[in-house]
Amino acid sequence: MSGFVSFVGSGPGDPDLLTVKAVKRLKAAEAVLFDDLSAGPILELAGPGAELVAVGKRAGRPSPKQDHVSRLLVDYAQAGMKVVRLKSGDPGIFGRLEEEITALREAGIPFEIVPGVTSASAAAAAAGIPLTRRLEARRVQFVTGHDVTGALPEGLNLAALADGKATTVVFMPKRTFARLAEMLLAAGLPGETPALLAENVSHPDQRLTRATVATLAETLAGADPRAAGLILYGPLAE
Amino acid sequence: MSGFVSFVGSGPGDPDLLTVKAVKRLKAAEAVLFDDLSAGPILELAGPGAELVAVGKRAGRPSPKQDHVSRLLVDYAQAGMKVVRLKSGDPGIFGRLEEEITALREAGIPFEIVPGVTSASAAAAAAGIPLTRRLEARRVQFVTGHDVTGALPEGLNLAALADGKATTVVFMPKRTFARLAEMLLAAGLPGETPALLAENVSHPDQRLTRATVATLAETLAGADPRAAGLILYGPLAE
Repeated sequence: MSGFVSFVGSGPGDPDLLTVKAVKRLKAAEAVLFDDLSAGPILELAGPGAELVAVGKRAGRPSPKQDHVSRLLVDYAQAGMKVVRLKSGDPGIFGRLEEEITALREAGIPFEIVPGVTSASAAAAAAGIPLTRRLEARRVQFVTGHDVTGALPEGLNLAALADGKATTVVFMPKRTFARLAEMLLAAGLPGETPALLAENVSHPDQRLTRATVATLAETLAGADPRAAGLILYGPLAE
Repeated sequence: MSGFVSFVGSGPGDPDLLTVKAVKRLKAAEAVLFDDLSAGPILELAGPGAELVAVGKRAGRPSPKQDHVSRLLVDYAQAGMKVVRLKSGDPGIFGRLEEEITALREAGIPFEIVPGVTSASAAAAAAGIPLTRRLEARRVQFVTGHDVTGALPEGLNLAALADGKATTVVFMPKRTFARLAEMLLAAGLPGETPALLAENVSHPDQRLTRATVATLAETLAGADPRAAGLILYGPLAE
């Protein structure tokens, strides 16, 4: 008997920002594989018989090898279980989903993806600003501040990223934003472009700090290096 | 006594893709202002005493003036009501949120934004593909296919949009994608770049059509002009 895997977006952290479908999948799950980042109160929604399996990485600590996670996922599903693979935010956005999907396909295991609220939407909502603006920001883009080695990704499209008419959201920005900001300013983005550092979005210790692209590196120096964070910049509304 | 407005993202359409918080706000609402696009089964979640107010626009039909919607929102809140303003997808992404927020601020009415699952995430999830890929697509961007007049927006950043290393999602693409595709190909995007037309995402009549950027204009000629749709293009996974 083959199991089934639901990749479930857990949203930014507040259990109230799970979708109804995510809650249903958690309640029905026989095993829940989770990263530390999406743990806590959300796991309490799983049924009492569900096996909770930490497979996670956490900013600043080394990650378990991705193929180890994929292996576990296949193992639980091949045991015939209904498996939930929790992914913070939306699983399709910087969720490293593809490696795990490939492993399931190779093993012939059926799966679904339950989309979630991306942290980018939650950060903007918490700050009371839209990600798009009718005239000022008709494009919104999400990028990651580091590749698998922790460095700023190579081959950044600076014409896209230094565009003052787009809202940009940088995921996992803390270690590399100072360098990125230098590149953006060199590429012509005005230093006074509004920026927002959003930490622990939707959690009780959420912190929103307004700055500019030029001053944000300084703001980051005082930020908690362990807190999960996003940076938004562009023609942000007040 | 002042009322309170919750801008609530209704997600792509399936009520199961509402957040728990969205359901709570609907159940507690005394008035729900909705666009046609987000109507239907979601409205059934509102309490029996809630006033349901259609203020909406629908693709292909003229919209009521935005200031009329803002005026209604202020009126209901000033009557002391708990008002839900439903917005399809995530309210911060092409939701015309700013005009309504400005009207509330001017009237001194408190509000919150409840983020939702953007249709872009739901379309990718339905197709079983991630919006970002570890090496191939480290950037994802959302743009709109038309401005308020229905034409392709001016001042498009083609260096951003013709980037074969990003996933692009075009909202409301149907009337203008043929012209956009010409511009993308002229700017160097290969015609064989994978593309996906996603119609009525998460609804019972959802339709996903794979194509390429070069062939999608032809695909669109056979699409239902009334169906809400998104186009994804870029290095999409299979």
